[in-house]
Parts: sequence; structure tokens; C-alpha cells
Amino acid sequence: MTYCVAMRLEQGLVFAADSRTNAGVDQIATFRKLHTFQVSGERLVVLLSAGNLATTQSVVSLLRMRLDSDRPNLNGVGSLYDVAAIVGATSREVRQRDAGQTQGSVDFGSSFIVGGQIRGEAPRLFLVYPEGNFIECTADTPYFQIGETKYGKPIIDRVVEYRTSLDDGIKCALLSIDSTLRSNLSVGLPLDILKYPRDSFDDHLHYDVDEHHEGFRALGEAWSQALRGAFQAMPDMQW
Amino acid sequence: MTYCVAMRLEQGLVFAADSRTNAGVDQIATFRKLHTFQVSGERLVVLLSAGNLATTQSVVSLLRMRLDSDRPNLNGVGSLYDVAAIVGATSREVRQRDAGQTQGSVDFGSSFIVGGQIRGEAPRLFLVYPEGNFIECTADTPYFQIGETKYGKPIIDRVVEYRTSLDDGIKCALLSIDSTLRSNLSVGLPLDILKYPRDSFDDHLHYDVDEHHEGFRALGEAWSQALRGAFQAMPDMQW
Repeated sequence: MTYCVAMRLEQGLVFAADSRTNAGVDQIATFRKLHTFQVSGERLVVLLSAGNLATTQSVVSLLRMRLDSDRPNLNGVGSLYDVAAIVGATSREVRQRDAGQTQGSVDFGSSFIVGGQIRGEAPRLFLVYPEGNFIECTADTPYFQIGETKYGKPIIDRVVEYRTSLDDGIKCALLSIDSTLRSNLSVGLPLDILKYPRDSFDDHLHYDVDEHHEGFRALGEAWSQALRGAFQAMPDMQW
Repeated sequence: MTYCVAMRLEQGLVFAADSRTNAGVDQIATFRKLHTFQVSGERLVVLLSAGNLATTQSVVSLLRMRLDSDRPNLNGVGSLYDVAAIVGATSREVRQRDAGQTQGSVDFGSSFIVGGQIRGEAPRLFLVYPEGNFIECTADTPYFQIGETKYGKPIIDRVVEYRTSLDDGIKCALLSIDSTLRSNLSVGLPLDILKYPRDSFDDHLHYDVDEHHEGFRALGEAWSQALRGAFQAMPDMQW
């Protein structure tokens, strides 16, 4: 499994992804799920992926191989809407190619979160379903999740709004992942974190969080303590 | 869907269940999922159920109809282990009866949490799988969940240990359900809460929590505020 979350906030975008893939509990490996496509000063496209690893890797490889081709590609189109459409079409193409040859119950599907900004547009964020169709993030629900989403949803639902700052968004994404890590073995470190301030057209605020990262460990411990403290302070029920 | 959680703590047992059932989003109804079988002063058996409503109702009906029969039944057997085995066998019986007649992809399976105490034994807690086999709760992981379990798991994982008091266990179960209610529409009020102090052999501490319950509403709001406060107090990440 996997856990990825992205937010579209007033000040820009936040992306966070774990890096664990597993096929059963004895086939666990580390693969990055955050991919960037950048034309400095002009566009940044960020892809988060969950689902069948062969499919997601093929999709990313094809998207890169086609960057210089004549067909519509991630560096050529003028809108992030078209980027989402290309990701969806490529995902469908790979799935049909691979699943068409196979009998059996393997799930070849993959989900993607596609976000970023192309000069001339505001930052945008899309969720591309395994079927290749997609939805766009709006201010009412300013985030998307893919993968093992449930453990980490309550904290986001309680804290994140469109006006939340980018730093608070990152903090909340990290706590959401921390909750997931503690409750589910199929999600694991290291994490990829990307902070995208509106109109920066750049991916240099890209952070790696591994098991030696003091800040993340301190945040997780502070949060555990704060939760236990808050719990102890809750009133007993009067029946 | 459904969300039920039960804990086996040093001082006794805690049971909590929502009451929503749904078949799609336009067929929502209220059915209680907490059932008690009591012989006052001698034994209390509590059943929580999740899964196919026809199966769970039939299982409970058959268990009740057979209480006065000659075959092994919930009032007759001498150990809660045997109670769990009877629940599992009855669940298998109903599932085979109903699923045997049908083509199609309907899931006839149900899960049960079976807990309580029979004089001569300590309080015990079992999880009965849809296949009818079962596991028993131990001090290392002092709780079981069935139904829509993921949203409410992180708070339990952080707070509950075997030595947690019954009142704190109930508080945590309520917060776990509150988190689930906020993030998932298939779980809904009213709630059934049962507190069982060890060696009481009685179910009189059974509480009903509906949408007018001031204490539950106050608890949920206090928790939301405490979480937001704790979040604001978290240090910003230093990269």
C-alpha cells in the first residue's frame, strides 16, 4: 500500500508521500512515489502515485519519454487540466496493455494526484482515478488522498481549510502520515515532502524525511504527548 | 457499514457500537448492533455485530430461540470460549443456508465481537470472523474493532492499555467513534455503550447516546478544540 496526500491552499500547494510498496508482508520495498516535471520559471507538475507499482512506473516512464515528442506532453500543454487528461490517458493505456494479456485477479489499477502550476493559471490539483477520469480540488475540500487514506483523514478533516498556511499544511500532512505509520505496516519511511508557494514555478522546497530525521521524530512524539494530555483533560461522561 | 469497538481492561469490559446500516447511500436505517444475553448474577454475554444485516439478525434470533433447547446454547455452556464457538457455528450455518441459494456477488459474511463473563472465569473477549473461527483478546492488544475500523484506530492505539480505567476506555471509545462519524457517513448515531465491571454479572450500565446527548456533544467539541489547540502548539518543521 501507500499513503499520499496533497493540499491546494491559498498560498500554494503541499505534497506528501510515503515510499513503501508491498506485495504481501514479506515483499516490502522502498520506491519513491513523488515525481516532478519542471520547466524552471514556467511550470511545475507534481505526480503522486498509488496502486500497482508496475503501472505507476510505466506511466511515469512514458510521460518522461514523451516530453520531447510531437504528441501532447507534460511540457507542451497549456493547462494543468490537459496534464491531468494526459496522465489519465497514459494510465489507461498502460493498464489496457498489461491487463489485456493476463487472466486472473491482479489489480492493475493506479491512482494519481496531479498538481502544480503552469504560468498563466493558478495552482491546481487533480485526482486521477484508475479509470483515467479525474476530479479537481476546490476550496471547500482543499485536499486529496490516495492509498491507505482512512487512518490519517480525521486530523486533516479537523485542521485543514483553504486558508491554512503552507507550513501548517505540511505539519498536518506529517501528522496524518504519522498516524497512518503507527496503525498500518504497509506505509513506511522515508517520506517525500514538497512545498510549492504559488507563482514560484520551482521544486526546490523538496524535503526528504527518513528515520533519522530529528524534526519528524520530535513532531511525532510531541503530538503523541499532546494527544494523551488532551485525552486526560477530557471530562468524564456523566450518564 | 458499522463501527463497533470493545476493550478488555484490568477492571472489566467496555463495549461501544453505532447503529447505522446502509445498502448504498440511499438506503440508510437504524438497527442496534449490541445484544446482551444475561443470567443475572451468573453470566453476561455481549454480542456486537457488523456485516450483512440479514445474517447478523438471523444469528442473534437463532441464538435466542435456542436458549431453552437441549443443544449447546449461550445460557448452558460453562465457558466464554464455548460461547464464541457457538456464535461462530451459528454464523456459518446462516451464511451457508442463505448464500447456498444465491448466485451473484452479495457478501453474506458477518463479524462478531463476543465478550462477557461466566462465573468461574475472568472476563473474556473474542473476535469471530465471517468464516466462524475466532481469536481471543489478550493484554498486549486489549481491544477489538469490527466494521469501519480505520478512522478510529489511531486514537485507541495511542491511549488504551490494559491498565486503562473503564471510564477512560469508554471516553476513548466515544472519541474513536466521534472521529469515525466525522469522516465517514456510513457510521451514525445513536450509540450503544456498555460498561461491564469485572464480577458484576450484570448489564445495567448500558447507555444510549443519541444526537441530543449533551455529554457526547460536549466531549466531541472539547476534543476538536483540544486537537486544534494541540496542533497550533506543534513546532514548525525546521528543514
